[in-house]
Amino acid sequence: MSDPSKASTPADSVGERGEFALIEAITRRLPQGPEVLIPPGDDAAVVLIDGSPTVATTDVLVAGVHFRTDWSGPDDIGHRAAAASLADLVAMGADPVALVVAVVAPRDTDAAWVLRLADGLRDEAAAVGASVVGGDLSSGDQLTVAVTAIGGLNGREPVLRSGARPGDQVALAGRLGWAEAGLAVLTRGFRSPRALVDAYRRPEVPYADGLAAARAGVHAMCDVSDGLLADVAHLASSSAVRVDVQSGELEIAEPLASVAAAYGSDPLAWILSGGHDHAFVATFDADAALPSGFTRIGAVAAPASANEGEPDKQPLVTVDGEPWIGRSGHTHFG
Amino acid sequence: MSDPSKASTPADSVGERGEFALIEAITRRLPQGPEVLIPPGDDAAVVLIDGSPTVATTDVLVAGVHFRTDWSGPDDIGHRAAAASLADLVAMGADPVALVVAVVAPRDTDAAWVLRLADGLRDEAAAVGASVVGGDLSSGDQLTVAVTAIGGLNGREPVLRSGARPGDQVALAGRLGWAEAGLAVLTRGFRSPRALVDAYRRPEVPYADGLAAARAGVHAMCDVSDGLLADVAHLASSSAVRVDVQSGELEIAEPLASVAAAYGSDPLAWILSGGHDHAFVATFDADAALPSGFTRIGAVAAPASANEGEPDKQPLVTVDGEPWIGRSGHTHFG
Repeated sequence: MSDPSKASTPADSVGERGEFALIEAITRRLPQGPEVLIPPGDDAAVVLIDGSPTVATTDVLVAGVHFRTDWSGPDDIGHRAAAASLADLVAMGADPVALVVAVVAPRDTDAAWVLRLADGLRDEAAAVGASVVGGDLSSGDQLTVAVTAIGGLNGREPVLRSGARPGDQVALAGRLGWAEAGLAVLTRGFRSPRALVDAYRRPEVPYADGLAAARAGVHAMCDVSDGLLADVAHLASSSAVRVDVQSGELEIAEPLASVAAAYGSDPLAWILSGGHDHAFVATFDADAALPSGFTRIGAVAAPASANEGEPDKQPLVTVDGEPWIGRSGHTHFG
Repeated sequence: MSDPSKASTPADSVGERGEFALIEAITRRLPQGPEVLIPPGDDAAVVLIDGSPTVATTDVLVAGVHFRTDWSGPDDIGHRAAAASLADLVAMGADPVALVVAVVAPRDTDAAWVLRLADGLRDEAAAVGASVVGGDLSSGDQLTVAVTAIGGLNGREPVLRSGARPGDQVALAGRLGWAEAGLAVLTRGFRSPRALVDAYRRPEVPYADGLAAARAGVHAMCDVSDGLLADVAHLASSSAVRVDVQSGELEIAEPLASVAAAYGSDPLAWILSGGHDHAFVATFDADAALPSGFTRIGAVAAPASANEGEPDKQPLVTVDGEPWIGRSGHTHFG
């Protein structure tokens, strides 16, 4: 019997539609109740619970798609799974409070492996003062970890992707390109440089910097995990602005430069479009002193006007004033 | 290369350990921060977010484990996935506010099928006034839907599993056995009686009754989805009491009786240990008028005392005063 969940033609499949287009199509079908302050479309949603703003987001990691059990230990995978959701909360300017976690594991999975996965989740949560407060566990064919993070704003306004203003400076906190370079190392069967492999295995999320930005008058902020240019494009699109990234401001650290040279790769491409790191990109007043951890990487411009040509054809994001040629980011149906 | 996530002996595997034992082992490793009011172990956790109690729970459904795409439509699966988490919130006496959903789907899944899944999630949430406010979507080998529900208590105390007192009456809201009977029908290749098949496909959760109980001085409450006796045992264990279920109080509806007769099955076994329905079991003062939707099905007794024999050997739950022989519930590693 044919499986009714399967697409009858490839064009109808979720793989062809792509993650972002399908999420957009779903979102258009979802009415939002009066207690929804920030609906789907930002790093996390904000809802009123008993009149108090609560921030919530969920992310799922799948073996073979987001991690490999021969490349990352269970604690690494736990850290990464927790970080994906915690970074989204912090990008909203929220203080994380709790995680709930759904784990799917094949029946022959080592129980001790699952305990170490839970340890990784616990330890990443503890790094921002959050607790793992619940979960579910099911058998299934493929290791899968879905983490929901919830937190609060402690009286602050949520930080949105849509707040960037023409003239703002664009700033970055956190490392970029390291995880993608580490993945390139592992893909070639190597285990070093260790610093890059470790960056792939376990992201170092600059949570404190993101929260400092939220307290320092940030205009807009976004978690960077799908690639800098892709995530900056989300911010630019939400804010109806253009962003120019100045590549000279992006530090190419020594291990990135040397591995890229050895592999014939462009380290700037890893920095601009590599996934798996977790950084924060944010915009501030042009003359603002940047909060700790942030460095300037570009500037916000007004959207293209009609007399610059067809506005729809103007790129939202440029690098040194030019469109970036190449893959701009990472999608999990790509 | 061997996969480090695999158990080296079957005894070390999550399948042998079982869902509940492994969740218990994980929970023992999770410290709970000061903002955690109700830690893991009940139907949902309660945490303080900016000083306001927020209730959160997550459940995951996996194709081939919890549903089959040839037996249930995508909207049915969406309803069931949302119901699993919403029922847990209501069992805590919480008003659901929002869902976030993680979906894993093979690349060749029909995009329209995923949209109808989202419609089912949306419509089940709307039935309790909640909105789907966020989600994530990834490729993977096996359709998987993880739903987190969050809500509030509107000034009420959370309703715990641990509040049952000796002498309480035990009461039930909702249908039991129907979904298990419907599953038996589908397993034999039939599609009718339609009422049973529909009950399997889409649970009818008595949300309003559960919330009425929360406002009516309920002592303890628990979602019933793993089988009545299994879930009553959780309640009895948490409350350190014994529960006797009086089988004469359990209605054996006509379609259950006739299908059981045709299949040589015991309809009472479906009612006592069948999964997939969503009902609420609750305890109230012995002389309390039961809230709308609840009917009395048994009574709470004090724990066995030493002079009744070895207390550890006393069953937590009896049926008509006797231990129930047979499978008491449903586990997803069972």
